[in-house]
Amino acid sequence: MNSAGTPERLQVLLSGSWDEAEQQVWHEALRAACPDVDWHLRAPIHGAVQVAVVANPPPGALQGLPDLRLIQSLWAGVDRLLADPTLPAGVPVARMVDPAMTLAMAETALWAVLSLHRGFFDYAEQQRRGQWRQLPQRRADEIGVLVLGLGQMGQAVARSLAQRGYPVTGWSRLPPAAPGPAESWAGVQAVAGPGALACALPAAHIVVNTLPLTPATRGILDASFLRALPAGASLVNLARGAHLVEADLLQALDSGRLARAVLDVFAAEPLPAQHPFWSHPKVSVLPHVAALTDPRSAAQVVAANLRRLAAGEPLLHLVHRERGY
Amino acid sequence: MNSAGTPERLQVLLSGSWDEAEQQVWHEALRAACPDVDWHLRAPIHGAVQVAVVANPPPGALQGLPDLRLIQSLWAGVDRLLADPTLPAGVPVARMVDPAMTLAMAETALWAVLSLHRGFFDYAEQQRRGQWRQLPQRRADEIGVLVLGLGQMGQAVARSLAQRGYPVTGWSRLPPAAPGPAESWAGVQAVAGPGALACALPAAHIVVNTLPLTPATRGILDASFLRALPAGASLVNLARGAHLVEADLLQALDSGRLARAVLDVFAAEPLPAQHPFWSHPKVSVLPHVAALTDPRSAAQVVAANLRRLAAGEPLLHLVHRERGY
Repeated sequence: MNSAGTPERLQVLLSGSWDEAEQQVWHEALRAACPDVDWHLRAPIHGAVQVAVVANPPPGALQGLPDLRLIQSLWAGVDRLLADPTLPAGVPVARMVDPAMTLAMAETALWAVLSLHRGFFDYAEQQRRGQWRQLPQRRADEIGVLVLGLGQMGQAVARSLAQRGYPVTGWSRLPPAAPGPAESWAGVQAVAGPGALACALPAAHIVVNTLPLTPATRGILDASFLRALPAGASLVNLARGAHLVEADLLQALDSGRLARAVLDVFAAEPLPAQHPFWSHPKVSVLPHVAALTDPRSAAQVVAANLRRLAAGEPLLHLVHRERGY
Repeated sequence: MNSAGTPERLQVLLSGSWDEAEQQVWHEALRAACPDVDWHLRAPIHGAVQVAVVANPPPGALQGLPDLRLIQSLWAGVDRLLADPTLPAGVPVARMVDPAMTLAMAETALWAVLSLHRGFFDYAEQQRRGQWRQLPQRRADEIGVLVLGLGQMGQAVARSLAQRGYPVTGWSRLPPAAPGPAESWAGVQAVAGPGALACALPAAHIVVNTLPLTPATRGILDASFLRALPAGASLVNLARGAHLVEADLLQALDSGRLARAVLDVFAAEPLPAQHPFWSHPKVSVLPHVAALTDPRSAAQVVAANLRRLAAGEPLLHLVHRERGY
C-alpha cells in the first residue's frame, strides 16, 4: 500500500534482444493483458522494479535492481538466460509455458515425422530432378518414433504422434516430477534414465529432440548416439543446437547410415553462410521457427504470474536453477 | 455344390495394369487372405469365372465372362474402370475402401496443410537461397480449410484436420447418404450443394480436393472457383487431375492471387517432362502417391466381399454406375 491507501502498482521492466517492431508487439500485448502494472522499457532512475519480463536480455540488464522479486522469461528455453553471470542470484526465474507455442511445436514435429515417414522430402528432390517415381508406402504403425524430453513440449509432441498411429517412446533423463493422468499417455511409452535410452535407440526410426539444454544434455546427439540408431533412421532437432555434435551428424549422413535430418536449431544462429548444412541434400534447415512464443497467449501467462505475485500466491513455471530448466 | 457335395470354390480372375513384381505382391496377399478361392491370372479356357478383382484392367479383359457376378476394384477411384466401354453391363462393381489407404490420405492432407500453414515450403525455398528469415507464425485456428468430397477419404481428411485445430468445412455435391455418428464430426462443418460451395470459398485459406471424378465434378477447379478464394489461398489436389483446369491454376499462381499448390494428380500421368508444374516455384509435384492401396489390408477387404458373395449376403462398397462412384 502507498500512503494513500491504494495498492501500489507493480513496476515491471521489459527487456529483450529484439528489434523495435518486435518490442512494440510485445509491449502492446503485455500492456493489454496486464493493464494494472506499470511497464518500463528501461529501468527507471527513481523507483523500484519488482519484476523483469525478459527475452534474452542484454548481459547486465538486470543488475542494480535491489527490489526484484521475479524474472519472467518470455522464451521457453532459459539456458542462455541462466548462463549470464550477471543474472541476480536468489531471484526466482520463471520459464514461459505458452499453450500456442506448445501446439506449434507439436505441429512442427508432426510435419517433420510425416515428411520423413511418407517420403515427402524425397519427392521434393525428385521434383527438382523431374523424376516421377512412387516410393513404397509404409504405415504409421511401422515407424518407431523416439521423443527426447517429456516437458510440456515433449509431451505434446509425443501425444500428437501417438494419436496418428506412430509407436512412440518418450524419454526423459529423470522420471517426470508430476506425471499427467494416465489417459493423456495413451499410446506413449514413457521411460527415463540412461539405460532406457540405450534400449530405445535401436527401434527409433525417427528421433525428435525436445530436451532442455543443460550440462547433462549438451552434446547428447553424438556419434555413439547416432550409431545406436537403426540404419536409415532420421533425426529431428527442435531443441537446441548444442545438443548435437554437428560433425558427427554430417559423418552419419555422408556414410549413408542416417537417412535425413530436420534441424531447427544450430550451434551458431543464424546458421553461417558457409555452413555445410545449407546445401546438404539430406538436411532440412529451418531458421529456429519450430515454435515461436505467441505474444497473445504468452501475455496471458505473464499476467497470471503477475497476479500470483501481487496476491502472494505460488508462482507458475519456476526454473530449478541448478538443474537448468 | 458340385457332384461330390462339397461347396464349389469361387473362381476369381485377377487383372491389372501393373508390372510383374506388383502383380506378384497382390497375388500373394490375395491368396493369403482368401485361401478358399481359386485365383487366375488369365481367364481359364474351360470353366467359369465368378469374380474379377481388378486394378485398371486392360480394355476388354472382362469380356467373355458370362458367369461374372462381381467386379471388385483394388483402387478407390473407379472413373477409368467405368469409362471402359467393354465393361460388362449389369455386373455389380465394388470400389476399394481400404482403411490403410484412408489413413494414408489423411496423412498426406495433414502434411500438405501443415506445410502450407506453417510456411515449410517457403523455408525450403529459403534454404536453397541460403536465407535465414523467420516468417510470422499463425495459429491453426486462423487457417480455414475446405475439404471437397465427404466420402471415406474426405471424412478422414476433414476429421484429422479438425482434430489439429483447423476450422474445417467439408463439402459434398449431394448430401451424404449415410452421415456418421455426430461425434465423429466434431469440429467439421458439413455442407452440401452448389450454393454452400459458393458460400464456403471466400473463407477457404486452403482447399483440399478428395472428390470422385464424375461428369459433375470434372473441371470443378477452374478460374471461377479459384477467383472466389481469398487472396493468398492454396490448393491441394489429391483426387484426380481432371478436376483441375491446369491453365487456370497456373494463371492464378502467376498473378500472385494464389499462394501455392500441392498436386498429386495430373491431366496426364506420369506428368510430361516439359510440363510447367515440374519447375514452378509455387507448385509441389507428387507422383500420385497421396494414398496407395495397401495390399495387406485391401486383401482383407476383398476377402470380406468374396465371403459375402459366397454366402449370398449384401456386397460392400458397391458403385452407383450412373453417379460414377
